[in-house]
Amino acid sequence: MNSRFLILAEGAFSPLRSKTANACIRYTPEQVVAIIDSGRAGDTAQKVLGFGGDIPVVASLTEGLTRKPNALLIGIAPPGGQLPASWRALILEAIDNHLEIWSGLHTILSDDPEFAARAKSRGITIHDLRKPPADLDIARGRVRELDGRATVILTVGTDCNIGKMTTQLQLRDAMRERRMRVSFAATGQTGILVEGWGISVDAVIGDFIAGAAERLTLQAAKDADIVLVEGQGSIIHPSYSGVTYGLLHGSLPHAMVMCAQPSRTAINNHPWVKIPPLAEFIDMQERAAAPLRAAPVIAVALNTYDLTDAEARAAIERVERETDLPATDPVRFDPAPIVDAIDVFHRKRFAVTAGSTALGAGVR
Amino acid sequence: MNSRFLILAEGAFSPLRSKTANACIRYTPEQVVAIIDSGRAGDTAQKVLGFGGDIPVVASLTEGLTRKPNALLIGIAPPGGQLPASWRALILEAIDNHLEIWSGLHTILSDDPEFAARAKSRGITIHDLRKPPADLDIARGRVRELDGRATVILTVGTDCNIGKMTTQLQLRDAMRERRMRVSFAATGQTGILVEGWGISVDAVIGDFIAGAAERLTLQAAKDADIVLVEGQGSIIHPSYSGVTYGLLHGSLPHAMVMCAQPSRTAINNHPWVKIPPLAEFIDMQERAAAPLRAAPVIAVALNTYDLTDAEARAAIERVERETDLPATDPVRFDPAPIVDAIDVFHRKRFAVTAGSTALGAGVR
Repeated sequence: MNSRFLILAEGAFSPLRSKTANACIRYTPEQVVAIIDSGRAGDTAQKVLGFGGDIPVVASLTEGLTRKPNALLIGIAPPGGQLPASWRALILEAIDNHLEIWSGLHTILSDDPEFAARAKSRGITIHDLRKPPADLDIARGRVRELDGRATVILTVGTDCNIGKMTTQLQLRDAMRERRMRVSFAATGQTGILVEGWGISVDAVIGDFIAGAAERLTLQAAKDADIVLVEGQGSIIHPSYSGVTYGLLHGSLPHAMVMCAQPSRTAINNHPWVKIPPLAEFIDMQERAAAPLRAAPVIAVALNTYDLTDAEARAAIERVERETDLPATDPVRFDPAPIVDAIDVFHRKRFAVTAGSTALGAGVR
Repeated sequence: MNSRFLILAEGAFSPLRSKTANACIRYTPEQVVAIIDSGRAGDTAQKVLGFGGDIPVVASLTEGLTRKPNALLIGIAPPGGQLPASWRALILEAIDNHLEIWSGLHTILSDDPEFAARAKSRGITIHDLRKPPADLDIARGRVRELDGRATVILTVGTDCNIGKMTTQLQLRDAMRERRMRVSFAATGQTGILVEGWGISVDAVIGDFIAGAAERLTLQAAKDADIVLVEGQGSIIHPSYSGVTYGLLHGSLPHAMVMCAQPSRTAINNHPWVKIPPLAEFIDMQERAAAPLRAAPVIAVALNTYDLTDAEARAAIERVERETDLPATDPVRFDPAPIVDAIDVFHRKRFAVTAGSTALGAGVR
């Protein structure tokens, strides 16, 4: 049974704040029947986000139920990811109406006695996207086993919520069109929702973050030449840098794609942490990876959603000049410059001629 | 009731492998009645570790019980911190003999149905040193609130198990002798055991590592001018760097003390990760902190346990020359050079003249 999601985004449905909702609407719009946000009721997803067509925004669960959903998706993640108390009644009501619950909160809803009991009595399932596997291990540098047969690409960024997941999904789709053997390793609740599997590495306990990244990367490499690992956070983020580093050192990328937003000059919600100029940040990022594996940043993905077309093109040109790297906004424009950079990097590693899919063994 | 620990270190009692056992013996020897390690039975702590006097090593729980313990301390932490299956019967037998259980494993023993039921039936408590508080939050840069009244010093290191906790405890004791107002913020199970409180940051889920460090640092600063934060891991550790960075960016130290072992050239168990020359590593460490707060490394603590006295002195001189920083082995020799460096740094921050304990408010 396919999901028909009613998405809870109360008070937060917008281009930057409702991250999980937005990705679900962008990549699987056919599975979304409506979005709950009383402040935007009557609007459409297209009007609020610029994509998503005529999926309606509704004022309440009751109104949303008229659209015949079979699941409630918690589409927003408050800082810290805890469950706001005001949502409890709404979730219970959704369960009473036989909606499955999909949640990316840190609060594991299926472990909550009241939710668990109610769900059991109604015969529905609670899906906690952030619940990590029980059998995680520490990292052991095992991604190096892939050196002879695959290329691991990690998106990294100057800040959270800047395009690390979206860039990988755009690259994945573009690479599939070119018939490249590509896979996407989802590391956050939204990516897991879109891809159907993954581990939310920010919900893993500290000692196992890198181990979770290692396991994911190896698993994603099973049938792929190119593994696109979803990055998290930023090496300078005051709250989440631990997750960023664990993911970097566990996934051991061969190369990185830098995600940035030209208009962002400091970490969101932390104006005291300034974002250095991009060329300097790229140098910091490469230094962060180097002690374990020298991995260059080979392209830049710019998030230009708040710029005009002309401003966006100017920003891309300026970044290309300043960093000497190919750059684009892979959502607004063609992701080809980044796909090309990865393709060339991968072919050089394996000395494969264009058009061939055979891989040399152990070359690097 | 004071604890009288019987320490489980089966198969691992040695200077480098039984970290929790060793710290307990070094800092609270009066609380240790015996150590279980059948391979070293008949030896003393002094013979195995070089300290600990005549605390005996025994072959079994049964033999240890003759020493009248009232608690069993799990004194070793296997990689990953999980409970080896073979210890289950031994722990149950200890509970049956009315020993309290103290554990620093990632496996939370008090959450294990069999252990919990048995402990309840025998009326004893299971103390899980690594169990994090339930109400953790993300970091918000709040350590900056201390800027006007305290100095935060973090120990950092080239690798795990190299002296970050021990250095802080040696500094704490030396500072107390000088009547400095100092506190120790324990971030690992062993430090928590020694200090009586703290949070094991490596057992906290990724998004809350920095938040846990922030909370600990603020709490430790309540009645102290100098806060000594126990470091964890290494910025280049392939398994644990996430914890290291979260702790660094959450505790926001004003200065750092670098811990290193002259004879160690690669990360333990990861020979593929080489440790750069110390001056280069110090530069990397300062760059890792700088985007959030410029914090210099102001001294070096060398772990010379595997060198002769002459070799140790030569290593210290060489490091002082190469790094232009004061260095010592704070266990083997007087920790004064590091204490002096911290004292001078603290006084400069607050422009306090020697001999005064008054602090200027809001300086910097």
